[in-house]
Amino acid sequence: MVLGLRLHSALYPSWGLACLLPRSFASCPGKSDSCLMMPQLGLLHRRAWASLLGQLRRPPGAVCIRAVHSHSQVAEATLTSQLKPHEEKSNFIIKTPKGTRDLSPQQMVVREKILDMVVSCFKRHGAKGLDTPAFELKEMLTEKYGEDSMLIYDLKDQGGELLSLRYDLTVPFARYLAMNKVKKMKRYHVGKVWRRESPTIVQGRYREFCQCDFDIAGQFDPMIPDAECLKIMCEILSGLQLGDFLIKVNDRRILDGIFAVCGIPESKFHAICSSIDKLDKMSWKDVRHEMVAKKGLAPEVADRVGDYVQCHGGVSLVEQMFQDSGLSQNQHALEGLRDLKLLFEYLTLFGVAEKISFDLSLARGLDYYTGVIYEAVLLQTSARAGEEPLNVGSVAAGGRYDGLVGMFDPKGHKVPCVGLSIGVERIFSIVEQRMKTFGEKIRTTETEVFVATPQKNFLQERLKLIAELWDAGIKAELMYKNNPKLLTQLHYCENMGIPLMVIIGEQELKEGVIKLRSVASREEVAIKRENLVAEIQKQLSKS
Amino acid sequence: MVLGLRLHSALYPSWGLACLLPRSFASCPGKSDSCLMMPQLGLLHRRAWASLLGQLRRPPGAVCIRAVHSHSQVAEATLTSQLKPHEEKSNFIIKTPKGTRDLSPQQMVVREKILDMVVSCFKRHGAKGLDTPAFELKEMLTEKYGEDSMLIYDLKDQGGELLSLRYDLTVPFARYLAMNKVKKMKRYHVGKVWRRESPTIVQGRYREFCQCDFDIAGQFDPMIPDAECLKIMCEILSGLQLGDFLIKVNDRRILDGIFAVCGIPESKFHAICSSIDKLDKMSWKDVRHEMVAKKGLAPEVADRVGDYVQCHGGVSLVEQMFQDSGLSQNQHALEGLRDLKLLFEYLTLFGVAEKISFDLSLARGLDYYTGVIYEAVLLQTSARAGEEPLNVGSVAAGGRYDGLVGMFDPKGHKVPCVGLSIGVERIFSIVEQRMKTFGEKIRTTETEVFVATPQKNFLQERLKLIAELWDAGIKAELMYKNNPKLLTQLHYCENMGIPLMVIIGEQELKEGVIKLRSVASREEVAIKRENLVAEIQKQLSKS
Repeated sequence: MVLGLRLHSALYPSWGLACLLPRSFASCPGKSDSCLMMPQLGLLHRRAWASLLGQLRRPPGAVCIRAVHSHSQVAEATLTSQLKPHEEKSNFIIKTPKGTRDLSPQQMVVREKILDMVVSCFKRHGAKGLDTPAFELKEMLTEKYGEDSMLIYDLKDQGGELLSLRYDLTVPFARYLAMNKVKKMKRYHVGKVWRRESPTIVQGRYREFCQCDFDIAGQFDPMIPDAECLKIMCEILSGLQLGDFLIKVNDRRILDGIFAVCGIPESKFHAICSSIDKLDKMSWKDVRHEMVAKKGLAPEVADRVGDYVQCHGGVSLVEQMFQDSGLSQNQHALEGLRDLKLLFEYLTLFGVAEKISFDLSLARGLDYYTGVIYEAVLLQTSARAGEEPLNVGSVAAGGRYDGLVGMFDPKGHKVPCVGLSIGVERIFSIVEQRMKTFGEKIRTTETEVFVATPQKNFLQERLKLIAELWDAGIKAELMYKNNPKLLTQLHYCENMGIPLMVIIGEQELKEGVIKLRSVASREEVAIKRENLVAEIQKQLSKS
Repeated sequence: MVLGLRLHSALYPSWGLACLLPRSFASCPGKSDSCLMMPQLGLLHRRAWASLLGQLRRPPGAVCIRAVHSHSQVAEATLTSQLKPHEEKSNFIIKTPKGTRDLSPQQMVVREKILDMVVSCFKRHGAKGLDTPAFELKEMLTEKYGEDSMLIYDLKDQGGELLSLRYDLTVPFARYLAMNKVKKMKRYHVGKVWRRESPTIVQGRYREFCQCDFDIAGQFDPMIPDAECLKIMCEILSGLQLGDFLIKVNDRRILDGIFAVCGIPESKFHAICSSIDKLDKMSWKDVRHEMVAKKGLAPEVADRVGDYVQCHGGVSLVEQMFQDSGLSQNQHALEGLRDLKLLFEYLTLFGVAEKISFDLSLARGLDYYTGVIYEAVLLQTSARAGEEPLNVGSVAAGGRYDGLVGMFDPKGHKVPCVGLSIGVERIFSIVEQRMKTFGEKIRTTETEVFVATPQKNFLQERLKLIAELWDAGIKAELMYKNNPKLLTQLHYCENMGIPLMVIIGEQELKEGVIKLRSVASREEVAIKRENLVAEIQKQLSKS
């Protein structure tokens, strides 16, 4: 039996705790002599823990643990207060893993509405559904995510294949296309993905989160599918009424062109890309520092890059870049600019060009993008009267990845792809926050009819009655009691927002009728037993 | 770069391969000198592999690997045929992990229909939605599953908490209740679970599969929620038209009573339960052998157990067991029998008693059940004319678990629960098989209108037109080509089952009209451009 000693999650993001430990623990491999990570403390065997306490010669409940962190007092207090061996079970802290959460019935209703809206948009654009396993062979995810690869969750080697939880839905899609030799496909996929990020829950970022992806694979005329992806993002963001938004657009080839023109060696393109990508969260000064100090770029090269990546504007900026003495000499950049020009033309026809901004700082960290890239941000976080502003960052993103499928194909055959991903988790946060502010009440069940009785010993009649309703497809509930009180049953209906109540008692049974009550108006009518289902269906179709 | 040499999954369940290895590999920790597990072979560094080949002094493509398994020839043949260093990429086998699969668009349509049907039944019974993370703290899953615990997928310790993929949706539900101090809840949950079972794909068993759970938590009068669970199983299995089915019912307390009466020591109850549970797949003789030889039961004790567990029947068997000289003396058994009698009474009122069989061999392996348990089996696998019979085993199961929530609660407070799980994966297999047999064609998209042109240079007009349709909520597609052929566009509509086609060309543009074509009847009508959306909506509402 393992003593479930654990600190509350909020207290051990990844602190090293220095504590007085007996030799057996101090020799824990991979740790310094006097240091043991918190999560490991939580898994000490009960007997080992007792022996640890014994060796420390202190009474249980007062172990001296010094946290190597400024919050040490909190940690110490919590740890000591939890350490009561006589109350074994209370040491066990029940929680979900770090960065994950349960979705309550209220949250599920919100989520279902949002997902329905997103999926119906994907279907409106002719997408097929697809599902892939939660984990992939580890090697399938190798060399796809650049620096972010370290965020991948691996499964333990339990004898068999080496597996990793999927990091996004894009790589599994590319794997599916290559594996099945599919050359053309428009698909959507709604599913969870997992990333070992430092979670900042307040911003709606989690280690487990739901993604809604739409992708178009196939060799087509340029920028038509790309434009459709941006149109879809606009439709969804408008439809969800999240307030004003903007979609930043750039092209990897333009970035590559900029890097080449500025004199960055090709081997550093990916690393610099990652730095540039942080410009939405960090100042240019800090990004410049990262590029120079950490990634070894010459300061003057960094400054040249800075002149470019701080530009943003509409289609006119595309024209301006065509004239740029450096970029106009670079083949990659020219291709990117030509495509962006075409993209803006199509987006104008779609009526969404004013939502798009050509932003040279947009880089997107992932390795697999090869052409146009985009990211949607909310301009103001719909901070209406009385609403707390909520910083959620980007809510949708995507781009073109023409090389990814080829990485899986034995002969390297390429299937060009473009797609988008809706960050529904952040959208949930915004909608939830809004509902909380306005105190909106959500029905968490869809029950239409409640079967009640005012008398004792009517369980049998209620069971017969409710089975009739269920069999007729009517959503119905009853109280799981032999003799419930009528008032309790009425209150339940009011609390749960159940519109109709069917009441059966001695008199009704004698007369072969049932009382049908409207919970809101409190009106009651007697209905012949045999007409009950029809009458209920009539009432429900009215509302 | 890692050489992606891998054998096809079917070939390396967990074979140890003895091969001629250089010292560097032979010293692989945890393996015997000359033995290396197959999956590790697949991850040899390219250079290491080359050196291995060199040291073996054999030409590439003919490495001598001796499999410690009867399928050695197959293994050897495959390995050698794949070993062509000059064709690097072709060594890389693209697949999903063992026991998992992608769901194609066709499969997704089937799945969505089945899930919709199941969820609508859960909602009809007043259930709320709930979602929990894919993984839990490892300790949350400890001591919940008995012998099956070894099938749990653990995540790699990457610094932080020790995590495991959820094994079912029941334990996370109990954890949720305890964590949030919820005393009463009726919820459904549709989600994937993971088990490291030896997959026998043909029977519809996977290592990743979807479960649909419905549970009622709370202290209520006896057997009312239990009866509702069985009613739900009947509604779903009837609704899905899977052919005739039967629900076996038993009670853990009756089993415990039998074990006590037969003289099995209490410490062996769980182990013997697991053996009994195999009676649907193994003969009594084999189960008896397992109990005697592996689990150390005296032969005469095993025979006494055999007399009981080979009984099954209706409510009359319950009455008969009340009279049994042994069981009638056992308090546990009597409680179980009394509850089963009540259950049959309620099931009769629900009109489903004839689907239920009291089956003393039903044990359900999981540790957490405490009262009534049940399992639905298809009586004949809907083997209609020309259909291959498909053995799918149980398609739904569940039971009462009154102690599970208390295992999570710091003070051990119990919340009685009863629930069921629909094995939708097996149901998918049956429905898919049936559709394959009958050659049913499935539409994988919901596209209503295709925007086409018979002329060149009409992309701009098509884009404007389709944006109008999308904005009006109409499901529409077009060809991603500047100048597609009309015939190609017509064929696409016919193949995909798209009912309507909107055609725009020079003449239409001049006259301010659009041609609306019914793909099935091939009739075309000219419609004023401004009336197009209204006309399409009219046509669609008709069909």
